[in-house]
Amino acid sequence: EGELEEIVKVAVKVPVVRLKMGEVAEATTVVVLPVSIAAEGESGVGKVPMECKSEGGFGIVVADKGWDRWVVLPRWVPLLGIGSGVAVSFSNAKVLPWRVNRTYVNEPVLVVIDRKRKQVEFDDGFYLVAGSGGDDGGLKVEKGSILKETGVAETIGTVVIVVRPPNYEVDDQLSDEDWD
Amino acid sequence: EGELEEIVKVAVKVPVVRLKMGEVAEATTVVVLPVSIAAEGESGVGKVPMECKSEGGFGIVVADKGWDRWVVLPRWVPLLGIGSGVAVSFSNAKVLPWRVNRTYVNEPVLVVIDRKRKQVEFDDGFYLVAGSGGDDGGLKVEKGSILKETGVAETIGTVVIVVRPPNYEVDDQLSDEDWD
Repeated sequence: EGELEEIVKVAVKVPVVRLKMGEVAEATTVVVLPVSIAAEGESGVGKVPMECKSEGGFGIVVADKGWDRWVVLPRWVPLLGIGSGVAVSFSNAKVLPWRVNRTYVNEPVLVVIDRKRKQVEFDDGFYLVAGSGGDDGGLKVEKGSILKETGVAETIGTVVIVVRPPNYEVDDQLSDEDWD
Repeated sequence: EGELEEIVKVAVKVPVVRLKMGEVAEATTVVVLPVSIAAEGESGVGKVPMECKSEGGFGIVVADKGWDRWVVLPRWVPLLGIGSGVAVSFSNAKVLPWRVNRTYVNEPVLVVIDRKRKQVEFDDGFYLVAGSGGDDGGLKVEKGSILKETGVAETIGTVVIVVRPPNYEVDDQLSDEDWD
């Protein structure tokens, strides 16, 4: 099952990463993103600051407006060139259109999008779109090819990475030494 | 001179730390603090969110109000029990009442205060107070004993740590191997 998940991941061309405990530590720099709760739908995403700049020696994050919900993530490669990033917080992984296993589907996920890339560019890219009904404000992650078929050209933004929470229950978070 | 600085640091009982490049990486967790620009004075500090909680598996920071300026710091020990933290951003270190060397004094500093601890508790503690005139909105860091002598009982907050920016010019940021 784990192997199948790997294959699916490669096919979808969107990295799905599980945040490890203490992993914010791993990169030499971090990225601070405004968070939107999926339940607040498309308009919720629209209220988030458009631009966040890093300022001065302390890397102070300066947003173009005040915001009350933020997340710190390791500066993973897909986050490097992000134009206007938002981490959309979903209560579960049902929003993802690819096959996920049962544990995974019940975990919360952060879907990080770039709002500067609203156009459906790639068939195998993934995009956040406004649907109707369902949990999580009707927001959906949809594949580029499907959107093109249904004539959707503009989306809320391109999905750049999907983040799963740290797993506190399995021991793969710890090195062997911790158990000796 | 470096040694003298060390002695002064011990005497003042406020840790002064220089952020190392990539040091946000060093601790297993980080702390996200709202930033106030010193030039905006006491009222500027007063506008910053009072409470920031960490929520859920992703450690999303939820503030009691929107704010546009944030900094990520390693979760250093003095930041652990902080009640209502603000990083006050000073353009130079003249605000510090102890002797600092010439390079240091011209560098920006972040003075992190706890606004839940406004009372002057300790003679050898340091507190952020509103003065008048000068750069940086008239804000000053003052020693507890001095404040007691002049009858000041309440301050903007207790100073918990002073942060200096990473030094990009000196090689002490790099290990010896990097120069071999």
